[in-house]
Amino acid sequence: MPESPSSAAPTAPPPAAVEAIAEAGRWLDARGWCPATAGNISLRLAGGLAAITVSGRHKGRLGPADVMLVDAEGRAVATRLRPSAETGLHCALYRRFAECAAVLHGHSVPATLLSRRIAAPELVLEGYELLKVFRGIDTHAVRVALPLFDNDQDISRLARRIDAYLDARAATGGASGPLLAPAYLIRGHGVYVWGRDMAEAMRHMEGLEFLLACELEARRIAP
Amino acid sequence: MPESPSSAAPTAPPPAAVEAIAEAGRWLDARGWCPATAGNISLRLAGGLAAITVSGRHKGRLGPADVMLVDAEGRAVATRLRPSAETGLHCALYRRFAECAAVLHGHSVPATLLSRRIAAPELVLEGYELLKVFRGIDTHAVRVALPLFDNDQDISRLARRIDAYLDARAATGGASGPLLAPAYLIRGHGVYVWGRDMAEAMRHMEGLEFLLACELEARRIAP
Amino acid sequence: MPESPSSAAPTAPPPAAVEAIAEAGRWLDARGWCPATAGNISLRLAGGLAAITVSGRHKGRLGPADVMLVDAEGRAVATRLRPSAETGLHCALYRRFAECAAVLHGHSVPATLLSRRIAAPELVLEGYELLKVFRGIDTHAVRVALPLFDNDQDISRLARRIDAYLDARAATGGASGPLLAPAYLIRGHGVYVWGRDMAEAMRHMEGLEFLLACELEARRIAP
Amino acid sequence: MPESPSSAAPTAPPPAAVEAIAEAGRWLDARGWCPATAGNISLRLAGGLAAITVSGRHKGRLGPADVMLVDAEGRAVATRLRPSAETGLHCALYRRFAECAAVLHGHSVPATLLSRRIAAPELVLEGYELLKVFRGIDTHAVRVALPLFDNDQDISRLARRIDAYLDARAATGGASGPLLAPAYLIRGHGVYVWGRDMAEAMRHMEGLEFLLACELEARRIAP
Repeated sequence: MPESPSSAAPTAPPPAAVEAIAEAGRWLDARGWCPATAGNISLRLAGGLAAITVSGRHKGRLGPADVMLVDAEGRAVATRLRPSAETGLHCALYRRFAECAAVLHGHSVPATLLSRRIAAPELVLEGYELLKVFRGIDTHAVRVALPLFDNDQDISRLARRIDAYLDARAATGGASGPLLAPAYLIRGHGVYVWGRDMAEAMRHMEGLEFLLACELEARRIAP
Repeated sequence: MPESPSSAAPTAPPPAAVEAIAEAGRWLDARGWCPATAGNISLRLAGGLAAITVSGRHKGRLGPADVMLVDAEGRAVATRLRPSAETGLHCALYRRFAECAAVLHGHSVPATLLSRRIAAPELVLEGYELLKVFRGIDTHAVRVALPLFDNDQDISRLARRIDAYLDARAATGGASGPLLAPAYLIRGHGVYVWGRDMAEAMRHMEGLEFLLACELEARRIAP
Repeated sequence: MPESPSSAAPTAPPPAAVEAIAEAGRWLDARGWCPATAGNISLRLAGGLAAITVSGRHKGRLGPADVMLVDAEGRAVATRLRPSAETGLHCALYRRFAECAAVLHGHSVPATLLSRRIAAPELVLEGYELLKVFRGIDTHAVRVALPLFDNDQDISRLARRIDAYLDARAATGGASGPLLAPAYLIRGHGVYVWGRDMAEAMRHMEGLEFLLACELEARRIAP
Repeated sequence: MPESPSSAAPTAPPPAAVEAIAEAGRWLDARGWCPATAGNISLRLAGGLAAITVSGRHKGRLGPADVMLVDAEGRAVATRLRPSAETGLHCALYRRFAECAAVLHGHSVPATLLSRRIAAPELVLEGYELLKVFRGIDTHAVRVALPLFDNDQDISRLARRIDAYLDARAATGGASGPLLAPAYLIRGHGVYVWGRDMAEAMRHMEGLEFLLACELEARRIAP
């Protein structure tokens, strides 16, 4: 008896996932948050898979040939295409946060500049009404931390470094320290941000880029 | 005999009010003055009612399901939806100013930064030709004050604080001090601006954001 | 015998003039150089007339009802509408420069800020390749002066002040001093720029705003 | 027997080349990197020819009449139109780099400002993930140099100066110094950038303008 279609292993991302990723790419491109072929975008799928942008494609002009399947370890599924170089960071987020279903990685001027200038392990955001854009925050009277990591072309090593930091922070920081944003910065590189679906990831990105623009502006003007 | 349609209590905002609010939302979003779900927009209706944006909706993509009715106290009318958190500030403006018929609340980078940096109770704008954009002003040779208030998640308390300030100022400031702009700032939060109709509120917003951009720029460069 | 149509006095601006002005208005608005109802635009017509924007109209949304005729003295022709408050400045340019056929007046942030900060009577631009955008300039190795005037709500007085300055400069400055740009600034107000037709006026405006953006930027960063 | 069409000397750029150049022009114009008639764009064709923009045309509105043929020395082919003043710089790049097939020249505010402020012969970019946008670079841990040259209206002389610099650098700098970007700056003028096809030249331009925006921003804020 033939296997039913629904149980067949998928060989390409579903069209709705491709379109969600392409739309997010056009949105990032229009705002200048993903210059040229920089950045990458993924969406969690059923069965431990994810749809992610193919390496080296312009994020403002994504089509079906620019999105591919990867497994939970970031390995290409049913294609000889190469996924984004930082696929391992996306997969690590999906493994760590059960509720995370969409990841955006962008390169804005504020994210690049601030991440190069801030030597501390976290940028603490406070006193902004817009902090309420992040899931679960309902007041401006809160401190939200954005961790920063040094850049590394060895993505496995970078992913382990990020995991270790988040593990340590989960063990100690919950009580009195600032909350963690659903995002982090890589120095000289850009921002990673995530959400429970693509709409929430985009809302978090839009809010975070606003806050980074404010933080950069604050450094431009005298105190 | 059945009640005539015209005297029936309205159960939804009129389509023209929804469209005016949606258009203002797209306009704010296109300029970056209302990132993500921030901001809110209302229009005064007949019978002590107002149409206002539902809480948490993206202002660049508003449709009929994103605008609702509230009464003069800001309570939801004929719906279980929750109005914008700051509905009480809109209603307070409608009660105070008989000629006020539209209110816009945005979060721009200049409004956020300046409101965090300026400790004085008012930002005084002077010498700008563009001050003539405000109703009733016909010369640049005038001083226009934009009051600033600390942010507060207790909107009733914030509304009372704003009312008290405007009451006190009406009692004393009219003679020689600067004129009041049809607008105020909430620190770390954003700007409220109003007008006799949506077109005037938008004109006031466009003028005010230009003036705030100039004031921020003035702080970026040496004197 | 009836007067032939061609010799009849015109009662409204020709449609081509209206469209040229409306297109220039949308172009200024899209760049943020004409916020809200600020700015004004005119085009010289035959017979000593000009088409000019009606006072108080939004420059991004001009239609046939927003453009009117004025005579060489700036008086309304065949209409009870009121022309832009600064019509007298446009007419003075048409009287002074035979080759001037289009005038644009905008309010950009750089024009506003620089004009408030620069106390000298002229801003001298030099060393920019883009100076070649101005008619008659074919090298960057040139100095081009942009005169600045204090703002004045009495437009006749302001026009006389500008005329006197340009007269004096024509009498003395031609030999060795910098060339005059086809433009001037009014402090806290904005820029006037002109050309032999609307396309040239727009090219001059685009070049000048680029140069003002550079001059403002130069004041933002350390020497 | 008549000569076959394919061996006839071309008398106009092929439509695909015109459209590639026009699209690049609209793209530069939309980003503010080519104000008014500034900038120029070319594409290498077969037979030692190139298609290049006609002098003095607005780069945002190019059509078939705005693109012409030149030979390897930059002389007009089959037209009395005048090519862009800096055609000689394009041709020098085509002669020097066999793989160079498209050249873009833009005038952005960051390129103009930085080129005026930096007295050193090269701006060295390092530590940016986005350096990977340049062909052949696969890590942020690299130093990439952008040469700067003084402006000159004598384009032959400027081209010889650039050639001499690149010759000298090829002879000495390869071993330990920074890599050369596929781009250079002319002081007070703008940027030249190239690629193996128009898509690569545009990707290099987009990456370079991002990096210049970061470098300018770094000079705006305190260390």
